[in-house]
Amino acid sequence: MTAVKHTVDPLQGEMQQLGSAARAAAAVLALAPTTQKNEALRAAAAALRSRVPEILAANARDLAAAVARGTAASLMDRLKLDETRVEGIAKGLEDVADLPDPIGAVMAEWERPNGLKIARVRVPLGVIGIIYESRPNVTADAGGLCLKSGNACILRGGSDSFESSRAITACMQAGLKAAGLPEASIQLVPTTDRAAVGIMLTMTDDIDVIIPRGGKSLIQRVAAESRIPVIKHLDGICHVYVDAAADPRKARDIVLNAKMRRTSVCGAAETLLVDRSIAQAQLPGLVEALIEAGCEVRGDQTVRALNDRVVPATPADWDTEYLDAIISVRVVDGIDAAVEHINRHGSHHTDSIVTEDAATAETFLNHVDSGIVLWNASTQFADGGEFGMGAEIGISTGKLHARGPVGAEQLTSYKYQVRGSGQIRP
Amino acid sequence: MTAVKHTVDPLQGEMQQLGSAARAAAAVLALAPTTQKNEALRAAAAALRSRVPEILAANARDLAAAVARGTAASLMDRLKLDETRVEGIAKGLEDVADLPDPIGAVMAEWERPNGLKIARVRVPLGVIGIIYESRPNVTADAGGLCLKSGNACILRGGSDSFESSRAITACMQAGLKAAGLPEASIQLVPTTDRAAVGIMLTMTDDIDVIIPRGGKSLIQRVAAESRIPVIKHLDGICHVYVDAAADPRKARDIVLNAKMRRTSVCGAAETLLVDRSIAQAQLPGLVEALIEAGCEVRGDQTVRALNDRVVPATPADWDTEYLDAIISVRVVDGIDAAVEHINRHGSHHTDSIVTEDAATAETFLNHVDSGIVLWNASTQFADGGEFGMGAEIGISTGKLHARGPVGAEQLTSYKYQVRGSGQIRP
Repeated sequence: MTAVKHTVDPLQGEMQQLGSAARAAAAVLALAPTTQKNEALRAAAAALRSRVPEILAANARDLAAAVARGTAASLMDRLKLDETRVEGIAKGLEDVADLPDPIGAVMAEWERPNGLKIARVRVPLGVIGIIYESRPNVTADAGGLCLKSGNACILRGGSDSFESSRAITACMQAGLKAAGLPEASIQLVPTTDRAAVGIMLTMTDDIDVIIPRGGKSLIQRVAAESRIPVIKHLDGICHVYVDAAADPRKARDIVLNAKMRRTSVCGAAETLLVDRSIAQAQLPGLVEALIEAGCEVRGDQTVRALNDRVVPATPADWDTEYLDAIISVRVVDGIDAAVEHINRHGSHHTDSIVTEDAATAETFLNHVDSGIVLWNASTQFADGGEFGMGAEIGISTGKLHARGPVGAEQLTSYKYQVRGSGQIRP
Repeated sequence: MTAVKHTVDPLQGEMQQLGSAARAAAAVLALAPTTQKNEALRAAAAALRSRVPEILAANARDLAAAVARGTAASLMDRLKLDETRVEGIAKGLEDVADLPDPIGAVMAEWERPNGLKIARVRVPLGVIGIIYESRPNVTADAGGLCLKSGNACILRGGSDSFESSRAITACMQAGLKAAGLPEASIQLVPTTDRAAVGIMLTMTDDIDVIIPRGGKSLIQRVAAESRIPVIKHLDGICHVYVDAAADPRKARDIVLNAKMRRTSVCGAAETLLVDRSIAQAQLPGLVEALIEAGCEVRGDQTVRALNDRVVPATPADWDTEYLDAIISVRVVDGIDAAVEHINRHGSHHTDSIVTEDAATAETFLNHVDSGIVLWNASTQFADGGEFGMGAEIGISTGKLHARGPVGAEQLTSYKYQVRGSGQIRP
């Protein structure tokens, strides 16, 4: 007799164990009462506060490794934790505990002529896979939102922040344990092996949706490889269109805020469109204000003719998310041309019109095909918190399932509960 | 100088043209008023009625080809059209015209402390790809629902019904034209080449969602190959659980109806679970009634001991969608075992409990993880029409985006319209 030789990839086996444990935890979480989930969130916050030294020690190991690799200072800042930041993370979990619980909410109910009572009730999605990069706070933010919405999650943090994420995950699991919920409700992939991501993206039985958080290359890789549905935010190529009927003061305030308040956020404006009829009157001031604020302005010929500090824009500029103090500026022939430019070059994320003309504004709000469209307000309001939705896990630029800010409610599905008295179908 | 030789796959080019035309049509449809869309639906119904001879002639060509291939009689029936069926298709389009228009509906609106007014407004998804098999009526049903919900669609019908689908598509396009809407709003892939499906599934720029309608092998192929999100209905392994506190009369009526009213629909029950405490009292009558009604009963040992006409069930039976006059029957130890069986072996489609005990019923409604859960009603109510949602394109067994019956409302997304007065973000 010859022995049968089993060759199982150990990483594959480890990932399958995570998956099975998450699926089992999800079944418990789906039925957990609100108070128990909130207790877990608050206990996790308490654990974060009481373990600040361990967390900072773990973070110091990540930072030392990053220094050794010669990591850029800007990335170091994203990675770094201190007591204030840990307190912010803990407070964030308490804020999530204070949010309304979406699960069990009756979204609609009606009765049929045959007496059947139908209710559409919110339920969790199941198991959510979250793949992110260097910010260790995502471990708690994403884990907390999933927990609130009754979903188990499998977190795959960046290798840069692996030690920090592990320390934070331990706090989340301590919170779950204290509340009597399965610790496998929030799991961190326990390896920095990049192959783990590839395996995750094929775990169709045990992961219901994948949410990537990070730069474009990460998101593109996930979207291309995943066999599991992905809720993604690809680009934030956001526009401000200054219409012929714009109030110049509002235009100036909104353009400056949309571009310069924070240049690295997805809701930052990347392109300014100005109606030709007011270009002579308003563009010089707008361009001057942007340059004064430290912004590089890349313009078409008309814009360059107005100010010699404007750099020439190339066609690629209209499709570029700078995430930096750079703006592309183009003169367009009215609202229709503005809408056409935005729908062609934008990323369906967030776009704003400045105008005092209500009819033009409504055209913009209806015709621009983006998740968030604003009238006389800064694109930097693109944020679940600013929308009053509480915490968010990101902003979806897709149209399926969730569009715009993805908060606890967007991490849910629904079921139909039908109550009868013996009805059969004729 | 040497000439540059371009080699473009003609089918690829043809599919790209369909895609571009659909995308352009979708932009128009998204903004089309309700009256115009309804006019197109009614004009399409009129075209179907006035072109009955052409449609039946096209259908006769499909039928002749099917006969020549030696197609089974059951498939021939699905393929066959007659005057009554064409009238049914036309009437179906008028019913869709009578449905409320989901597009533009304000799903929620609220005001922020800073004065921003936020509205969540329904918008179409964009372009929907529908891949179906031999039933030619899907051409009109699916095309009509997409049109109502402001979506362009690319239809890929089965090669069996190609001529019939083409004749019906011509009527849909005549309706669109009569209403002044782009004919490319509803397009049929103009070839029976199977490679066209493979190309469709990669058209991520021009198709937003794929809906397969047909047998399991089609749906599995689409799910495995598609680079585009899929809304799918995989299986309908539906259960009836007869609880200890069931009313015997309701149990008998519901079990018979759920299994035997129509055995080929996805909401037909495939497995009967009976609580052990009432098995002796109620199972013999239930089994006898099923057998009398012409149903093959496959049972576990306890069931077989009660009636010698029961065939032994194998483990595979618990995971089988018969779509036929066959039922598997199992005795379970109470509600928890019933829920566990359903969540393990079911397909998260539709499951029913028969009981007079409200607490047990609520446990079932909350713990069974299916799109539709019923109390004292037949699983055959799993249908958008029976839910009062009007026509449906299918029943989704997934949790993302749409779950349960997929009607016009489920073919939509939303956008946030934010109206301000110059707000900038602090």
